[in-house]
Amino acid sequence: MKPINDKQAWVVLVAGGSGSRMGSALPKQFLNLGGKPLLCHSIEAFHAALPGMHLILVLPAMQLSLAQMVLQALPGRIDLQLVAGGETRFASVANGLREVPDDALVLVHDGARPLISVALIQRCYEAALLQGSAVPVVPVTDSMREIQAESSRPLAREHLRIVQTPQAFDAAALKAAFTHPYEAGFTDEASVWELAGRQVHLVAGERSNIKITTPEDLILAEALLAARQVG
Amino acid sequence: MKPINDKQAWVVLVAGGSGSRMGSALPKQFLNLGGKPLLCHSIEAFHAALPGMHLILVLPAMQLSLAQMVLQALPGRIDLQLVAGGETRFASVANGLREVPDDALVLVHDGARPLISVALIQRCYEAALLQGSAVPVVPVTDSMREIQAESSRPLAREHLRIVQTPQAFDAAALKAAFTHPYEAGFTDEASVWELAGRQVHLVAGERSNIKITTPEDLILAEALLAARQVG
Repeated sequence: MKPINDKQAWVVLVAGGSGSRMGSALPKQFLNLGGKPLLCHSIEAFHAALPGMHLILVLPAMQLSLAQMVLQALPGRIDLQLVAGGETRFASVANGLREVPDDALVLVHDGARPLISVALIQRCYEAALLQGSAVPVVPVTDSMREIQAESSRPLAREHLRIVQTPQAFDAAALKAAFTHPYEAGFTDEASVWELAGRQVHLVAGERSNIKITTPEDLILAEALLAARQVG
Repeated sequence: MKPINDKQAWVVLVAGGSGSRMGSALPKQFLNLGGKPLLCHSIEAFHAALPGMHLILVLPAMQLSLAQMVLQALPGRIDLQLVAGGETRFASVANGLREVPDDALVLVHDGARPLISVALIQRCYEAALLQGSAVPVVPVTDSMREIQAESSRPLAREHLRIVQTPQAFDAAALKAAFTHPYEAGFTDEASVWELAGRQVHLVAGERSNIKITTPEDLILAEALLAARQVG
């Protein structure tokens, strides 16, 4: 077993939301959650989980000026570098990865998942150190169907997993995988990693690590945050 | 187009939860939500959506005595019949269906989905009157993977739907479908309906129509309820 601190942790935090589905002029990653911009929560969790990590915050070019909102709300000691995103999530992550050294362990995280826990970050980091990759997943509690041309069919939910972030990888190998041209199936880093012929290692995610997509999700996040502070 | 009120609505409300995943001695369907037992919320929604409907509440035999908690918290004018459930959800629904007349339109609903809206109930009822079945679904916002023997593979989420309830059907046809012996793939009524050679018609569900599975879900439900009352 390798020591668990033998690679520098780099975090690529990708925030591409426009706010349109939130019914808000302000992009969702800057909306107020528990008294600070939504992005601050995950940045602080990575700082607490992996002290000394380097963080690349990838924002749409038009939103770089809004980053000031985030920087002002953070404790000063967090090392954070701003990078402009691209047309797709894939392009945005690729832009972020260009700043990451080859010998790092890189964790790519959705900016829209503010409730990521310190424990889950550390679990992903440690698993990826040992196995080259770590992707958090949670079981599916609802029935699922697959839509076909004229109909739909039930899927066996016990074989399905909901995929979360952070997704952690050996940086050199992930950067190599990202030299592949964009494909529509690239909804996360694991799918890019796999197309490069590599194995995805799954770890247990957390149900509370939700992605903020709708106004209801923001209500949930506020409620979960409040429950944490009480608990 | 048929008139929309030509079939009597019957509701089979199935509550089989033990509370184990909630960390509670009281089964989740009786937990307090917004000042009353969780089950009361969906019962009241069905009453408001389909005045004059008949409701069969299916509970584990051991929990029939707890039904008093629900009855006492309901307005008196709601017609409700108690039925003991079976070993599986399938068996519980089958027990409920035995009480439903053949010429009815039956809506089967998860007791663990208290936030069902009047609008969604009516949408399911009306669609099933016209088409014989109506199953509410919502899109998937997370990436999904399918677990295989030694690995996993990504699924194209644009083709996937999360299945909710109420699932509405022509009662005679659903009762006929439920004469089939139990199979492990019967996670909802739609899967039973299909095995009988019938087409499942999908309608738009609602993201807020969540299933209460964990203590976090109950926090979300409280938050969503509070937001509704303000909004």
